[in-house]
Amino acid sequence: MASNSFGTLFRITTWGESHGKAIGVVIDGCPSGIPLMESVIQDALNERAPGNSPYTSPRKESDKAEILSGVFEGVTTGAPISIIIPNRDADSSAYTAIKDLARPGHANVPYLKKYGIFDWRGGGRASARETACRVAAGAVANCLLEKIGISIEAELFDRESIEKQLDLLKEEGDSIGGIIEFKILGVPMGWGEPIYSKVETLLASAMMSIPASKGFELGSGFRAATMKGSEHNDLWNYEDERLRTDTNHAGGTLGGLATGMPIIGRVAFKPTSSIKKSQATVTLEGEKETFQMPAGSRHDPCVAIRAAPVVKAMCRLVMVDLLLFNQLHQGLHCQQSFCELT
Amino acid sequence: MASNSFGTLFRITTWGESHGKAIGVVIDGCPSGIPLMESVIQDALNERAPGNSPYTSPRKESDKAEILSGVFEGVTTGAPISIIIPNRDADSSAYTAIKDLARPGHANVPYLKKYGIFDWRGGGRASARETACRVAAGAVANCLLEKIGISIEAELFDRESIEKQLDLLKEEGDSIGGIIEFKILGVPMGWGEPIYSKVETLLASAMMSIPASKGFELGSGFRAATMKGSEHNDLWNYEDERLRTDTNHAGGTLGGLATGMPIIGRVAFKPTSSIKKSQATVTLEGEKETFQMPAGSRHDPCVAIRAAPVVKAMCRLVMVDLLLFNQLHQGLHCQQSFCELT
Amino acid sequence: MASNSFGTLFRITTWGESHGKAIGVVIDGCPSGIPLMESVIQDALNERAPGNSPYTSPRKESDKAEILSGVFEGVTTGAPISIIIPNRDADSSAYTAIKDLARPGHANVPYLKKYGIFDWRGGGRASARETACRVAAGAVANCLLEKIGISIEAELFDRESIEKQLDLLKEEGDSIGGIIEFKILGVPMGWGEPIYSKVETLLASAMMSIPASKGFELGSGFRAATMKGSEHNDLWNYEDERLRTDTNHAGGTLGGLATGMPIIGRVAFKPTSSIKKSQATVTLEGEKETFQMPAGSRHDPCVAIRAAPVVKAMCRLVMVDLLLFNQLHQGLHCQQSFCELT
Amino acid sequence: MASNSFGTLFRITTWGESHGKAIGVVIDGCPSGIPLMESVIQDALNERAPGNSPYTSPRKESDKAEILSGVFEGVTTGAPISIIIPNRDADSSAYTAIKDLARPGHANVPYLKKYGIFDWRGGGRASARETACRVAAGAVANCLLEKIGISIEAELFDRESIEKQLDLLKEEGDSIGGIIEFKILGVPMGWGEPIYSKVETLLASAMMSIPASKGFELGSGFRAATMKGSEHNDLWNYEDERLRTDTNHAGGTLGGLATGMPIIGRVAFKPTSSIKKSQATVTLEGEKETFQMPAGSRHDPCVAIRAAPVVKAMCRLVMVDLLLFNQLHQGLHCQQSFCELT
Repeated sequence: MASNSFGTLFRITTWGESHGKAIGVVIDGCPSGIPLMESVIQDALNERAPGNSPYTSPRKESDKAEILSGVFEGVTTGAPISIIIPNRDADSSAYTAIKDLARPGHANVPYLKKYGIFDWRGGGRASARETACRVAAGAVANCLLEKIGISIEAELFDRESIEKQLDLLKEEGDSIGGIIEFKILGVPMGWGEPIYSKVETLLASAMMSIPASKGFELGSGFRAATMKGSEHNDLWNYEDERLRTDTNHAGGTLGGLATGMPIIGRVAFKPTSSIKKSQATVTLEGEKETFQMPAGSRHDPCVAIRAAPVVKAMCRLVMVDLLLFNQLHQGLHCQQSFCELT
Repeated sequence: MASNSFGTLFRITTWGESHGKAIGVVIDGCPSGIPLMESVIQDALNERAPGNSPYTSPRKESDKAEILSGVFEGVTTGAPISIIIPNRDADSSAYTAIKDLARPGHANVPYLKKYGIFDWRGGGRASARETACRVAAGAVANCLLEKIGISIEAELFDRESIEKQLDLLKEEGDSIGGIIEFKILGVPMGWGEPIYSKVETLLASAMMSIPASKGFELGSGFRAATMKGSEHNDLWNYEDERLRTDTNHAGGTLGGLATGMPIIGRVAFKPTSSIKKSQATVTLEGEKETFQMPAGSRHDPCVAIRAAPVVKAMCRLVMVDLLLFNQLHQGLHCQQSFCELT
Repeated sequence: MASNSFGTLFRITTWGESHGKAIGVVIDGCPSGIPLMESVIQDALNERAPGNSPYTSPRKESDKAEILSGVFEGVTTGAPISIIIPNRDADSSAYTAIKDLARPGHANVPYLKKYGIFDWRGGGRASARETACRVAAGAVANCLLEKIGISIEAELFDRESIEKQLDLLKEEGDSIGGIIEFKILGVPMGWGEPIYSKVETLLASAMMSIPASKGFELGSGFRAATMKGSEHNDLWNYEDERLRTDTNHAGGTLGGLATGMPIIGRVAFKPTSSIKKSQATVTLEGEKETFQMPAGSRHDPCVAIRAAPVVKAMCRLVMVDLLLFNQLHQGLHCQQSFCELT
Repeated sequence: MASNSFGTLFRITTWGESHGKAIGVVIDGCPSGIPLMESVIQDALNERAPGNSPYTSPRKESDKAEILSGVFEGVTTGAPISIIIPNRDADSSAYTAIKDLARPGHANVPYLKKYGIFDWRGGGRASARETACRVAAGAVANCLLEKIGISIEAELFDRESIEKQLDLLKEEGDSIGGIIEFKILGVPMGWGEPIYSKVETLLASAMMSIPASKGFELGSGFRAATMKGSEHNDLWNYEDERLRTDTNHAGGTLGGLATGMPIIGRVAFKPTSSIKKSQATVTLEGEKETFQMPAGSRHDPCVAIRAAPVVKAMCRLVMVDLLLFNQLHQGLHCQQSFCELT
């Protein structure tokens, strides 16, 4: 089943395996006339790169993105934008030792069951390396968003406390989970599409497609379950010549449409499944075995740390799609711009 | 933007407003040869109907679903199945009093901003009444799922404690949120599609499209954030001639593919926004006003109670799509059934 | 496979069988704020109705379309528009005589092979009656198109000569094919989307989905095969302050994009397969038999005559989709209207 | 608008400009377990290469396709297959002379109007070079089709007579159109999906997306317009234990579903618009000018000659999609294989 595309009008298709020749993304639907330099994509990739923290995996990814199409004289043409990121520093040999074992907390068993074949080198298509493509595409999306004043932040919740635990975890060969909180500022009221493309529907889908994510919530989220209506309802007010709410339990949407308030939510990530500690498992044939990640393999003790730029990228991709969805509502309410169509 | 369809291969399109002539759903992609009676749909609708609990809204919906197409001599033909549910007992007059006010916690303001027009009768398209269509379609989906032994449960978390509060809440004219937990049993290992149609991606999208939902989690969910990898990883074992895990922190998926274990998750719902208590608000022109739900209007003090059948229906719709996705992987691994194609 | 929808942004889903309870269409993606009356749809249906010519089938369809949703106080709301057309005057009993025979030129055999079941009453889903839904949806599309000055004509090629033959054909119990030529006026230069949603790609797809269509061509069409480049190229000129071509062999598109010239093409229809003349056939079990349409059955001697309003409707549906596609290119070239997004 | 993808379940996305760094295609939805070598793709590209005939353009394309993902140990894994074809031998300097002119019969004017920018080097995205990606993807599709005995032929109609004219045309600096006829053998009865994904609907869409195509017909095609029903109807017979028709005016489909007979159709191509002969035109600002293709530019005098492998590729892409569509109908009629799903 074709399932490697995300987005509807600003549509990305990602491809590539962790230890294959390259990974990449094709962006279809990016409007023309947007200045786009490789350095913008590179900057976003660098933000995701492991070197940013002492607690991220030591693989020197040094990802170099190259734009292969869709840009002419520094400006988008409306044609698909193909971005390629060659794989370097990928030594698959360490993985041969575990290729016939059921990996704890990893997808190799269901992949094998589904496809009858699994590219076990570095986790193949199931590797989080695919998220580099999302970050690259998100950087392109951001070129549109920043033009109209939309900005996005994403950061690890309770970062300090988690970082304190990491030295001990590394020593133990263990890992820990985390929560990323995102804030999307500047989204005009009315964005989002009922019934099945609500703001939170698209965001939830985006976030739950990130490897290791286990939960998503918007605004009050799970806390809403114990709140009363009289507490939770954000009351409307009139300020600066527009309707707005005083509080923001809703997290920026009502009925799936943006209220104009900040869109705020959280994504829960499980602890990295690939840990140094040895674990009991079975071979793919069912014989009991001990599982030990190979010496050379590289993994983050807290996958959530590196997930922040990915969460940000997915926010960008959702928002740029909503921007284009919203174009379809323009003009018909405003006779003048509708006439410009002709 | 066309956004009233859900699903890819088993695709539903819903239509209708709360107080219009009718609501309905068209199911496109249902395989032929499935026995289907109106009573199966009716039973599912009855389960959603308010009469089931003393704490649900007193509107006598008495929804009667009628199948208009796609079924011949009691069996599906492969043609689209159109189901219509006429609206009865709908008196819109009570709503005229509030149609020019910003409704607290309700979508009428962003709808108006987006579309320039809002069918305010009973909440129009933004009403939870649309979910009856999902329940009807889910009942059809279930005819396929039960053939292969997939069953789904959904129930209010901590139901007793919530029900204890309801009498007082009704007296106060207030409401409360809640959490629905679902369990999907019998899903074969390997269902789900990487990267953007993972089991949890589709489920999250499904659940966050339900009115009043604020959060979604799978398996350990948000608790995963504080767990260690060595705790969270479900260890593989070999039992009854197949690979399975002892624990199920994952909630039934790895890398977005079903592990064969129960798929378990939770959906958080906010408290009903329409409460009897009076609330401060403004008119659509920005003048301060007091908001009071009209005397005749009917709302549940805990929307989550009635959400359980809707969560179940959305699980069914996701699972039937995954069933069909998975058909595409069959046969090519098994030469025999592939040859049957010819 | 879900395949009963047409269009991407202005998306219709049709449902219903020839002799079922009703047929209908759901339109998803129609912008809000468009005045829409049932009479506009009714007028379009009347144009398709058989009473318009002495040479069309005598079934008194008297189709009455009803709008069930998506319109409030006479104006579209942006919610899906559901239109239902009840089936009347449908007597299926005549069809029992032929339900076990392979119908010459008809789809009942492949339908049975595909689905294992066939609603043989009046041809079921394979009946051209489905096209009434397209005509209804096309009338809604036209409300948008006429606002910006796009008009569409479709008529039978060589109508007079065909009508001369019809009396004799009816006497013989035979039928004849025909060609419909369409002209779309007022389409702005640049509409259409490379590479796979070109103007002619969408039109061809639209036309070849009409029952009995066997061919499609644009502009010079099949005659282009014997022309020289120096003859075929339409030379550019500058007139009324815009670029335009003197001739129009291209039929209004270059590289799949509208040139601003009239979009002109033709659709070939085969002769009606249901004829009074007796024909040799076999039973579904393979026994030789004589096929004779039942006395009460009603069919047009020239299906192309009634196809003209359907061709027009499909042109409208393609054009309204292109209109919305084109919205996505607006504003980004024109800073002013882009800013209106905020 | 995202419009660079073709197909639904076996979905290709093409990217790249004629004189950019590379062109390429991503295939999403190819089943796993299919042996796939680069040489199969290379062979298909060589068949399209200009060197095959003295009458095709002298550009030494020497296209070398490289598979970047989706194949492991020579076998498809179910992950997206990314194929890249670097652009070589591309000298854009010759095009600077014509970049400010309206090109006769070419898309540069509507492209500029639509996008506000045009990559004029070699025709950019509007170049027929994009079709190399279709041929590459078609070769992958063919690996599935040949497993179940489907074969496809496509050849220039009246080839000899056209080749006789080519020497003179080259001398005159002119070009000529042509018709490609295709035959698809071995398609099982029942393939195709009513109402909008009929066999001929998908084929027409596929063919009319090929640059320079002006018409499509199936079976009797435009000749059907003058035939009688009693002539055109293909009578059913019972032979070799299955139902089949004696004649094949239908061209292999009824009601849009395959009849099991050969699927036969034709595609009309206009003469190459880029000719050596000088032509009158205007500048993009509207000043009269003479248009002369630059000395170094390379074009085929009959584009139809090189279109045959592209028509074949598009037939393959349509058929592989129908193969997968049809998987969805399997199993439910045949209890046994349905149970295998579990």
